[in-house]
Amino acid sequence: MKIGIVGATGSFGKGLAYRWAKKHTIYIGSRWREKGEQRARDYRLELQKYGIDARLVGTSNQDAIANGDVIVLSVKFEHLMPLIADSREQFRNKIVISPIVSLKKGQSFQYVPPSAGSVALLIQEMLPNSTIVSALHTIPANRLQRPDIILEGDVPICGDNREAKETVISLIKEIERLNPIDAGPLEVSKMVEPIVPLILNIKQHGLKKDTSIKFI
Amino acid sequence: MKIGIVGATGSFGKGLAYRWAKKHTIYIGSRWREKGEQRARDYRLELQKYGIDARLVGTSNQDAIANGDVIVLSVKFEHLMPLIADSREQFRNKIVISPIVSLKKGQSFQYVPPSAGSVALLIQEMLPNSTIVSALHTIPANRLQRPDIILEGDVPICGDNREAKETVISLIKEIERLNPIDAGPLEVSKMVEPIVPLILNIKQHGLKKDTSIKFI
Repeated sequence: MKIGIVGATGSFGKGLAYRWAKKHTIYIGSRWREKGEQRARDYRLELQKYGIDARLVGTSNQDAIANGDVIVLSVKFEHLMPLIADSREQFRNKIVISPIVSLKKGQSFQYVPPSAGSVALLIQEMLPNSTIVSALHTIPANRLQRPDIILEGDVPICGDNREAKETVISLIKEIERLNPIDAGPLEVSKMVEPIVPLILNIKQHGLKKDTSIKFI
Repeated sequence: MKIGIVGATGSFGKGLAYRWAKKHTIYIGSRWREKGEQRARDYRLELQKYGIDARLVGTSNQDAIANGDVIVLSVKFEHLMPLIADSREQFRNKIVISPIVSLKKGQSFQYVPPSAGSVALLIQEMLPNSTIVSALHTIPANRLQRPDIILEGDVPICGDNREAKETVISLIKEIERLNPIDAGPLEVSKMVEPIVPLILNIKQHGLKKDTSIKFI
């Protein structure tokens, strides 16, 4: 599969590239093509240490979107609108994975969803010709980016298109011990996205670092 | 401690009464005093089978509130407003535990918070002379009401008053293997309450029954 990672120079995008590079071609997108190319070289060298011969292609965010069958939006909410404005055409007919949450920090971390109800719903509104799947919000980037760490936890998956959801579920199953769970239609992302600021609040009050969730 | 359970004739309230009856006096509240009294007798008999000599007092919801130091609102969201209207004075200076969530079922279960942002925040607005603690949303009533079942899972606790939170945390610790976690101020309940409809959606798509959560 061809996977385009937007914002692949950050630790979350890097982590996904590392986890998926054994079996797929990964486009390492960056706002600056040269930075994307440089990081792809760095990642390839690091993965060789782990004995992984990775197919990574450094490029711009726009070309990562254009080249991927599945796109992961590994960007902060603040960067989402300009990204969509710049790449609307490239997004057409793609499966787009959103792990994005809109939050802010006051006395505690606050969940501040866009008026569409959730970030995933907002993206679906803005990209009616793409298929949005909401996933991977609760996976800690710090751990994801280290191929020697085995992750654990359930990954709720929300989306309105069964086939796209199955594709995302199978990709997540490739990451050892992560357990994708079908949580229903895309609107359920309204109930998944707030788990991220909840985890940040719990961490602030003394839970261990890099927490994930499990339904037991 | 004296614990008043409003709506203690339902399985969730019954479950809490069963779990706390060894160490505390429990007021079994019902909208109909006679029903409360009857259920308290039934519960006492059932608990004797488990070798528990319970201090249960059957009563009306109003008197359960008046007599408890800690009150648990084991009622559906639809019944909350009339309850508060009827018992405003009885609630004064009490610690009030809210496990209440506002949801509705369409194609999927939807989280429909009141305009205050969450049920817990709404109750705090309506009862400014009480101390609200948000807790126990994700504990399955079916399992809670069976003293022979050991529960598991984390219980996020939100509240603005440290002492009240500590009281609730210690009560929840008395329930074997439940793990109360301080999740911060009461406003964080906005991020806890949606986990209930999320779990219902996940159950609808095939997860096992009576699911709870764990932060790992």
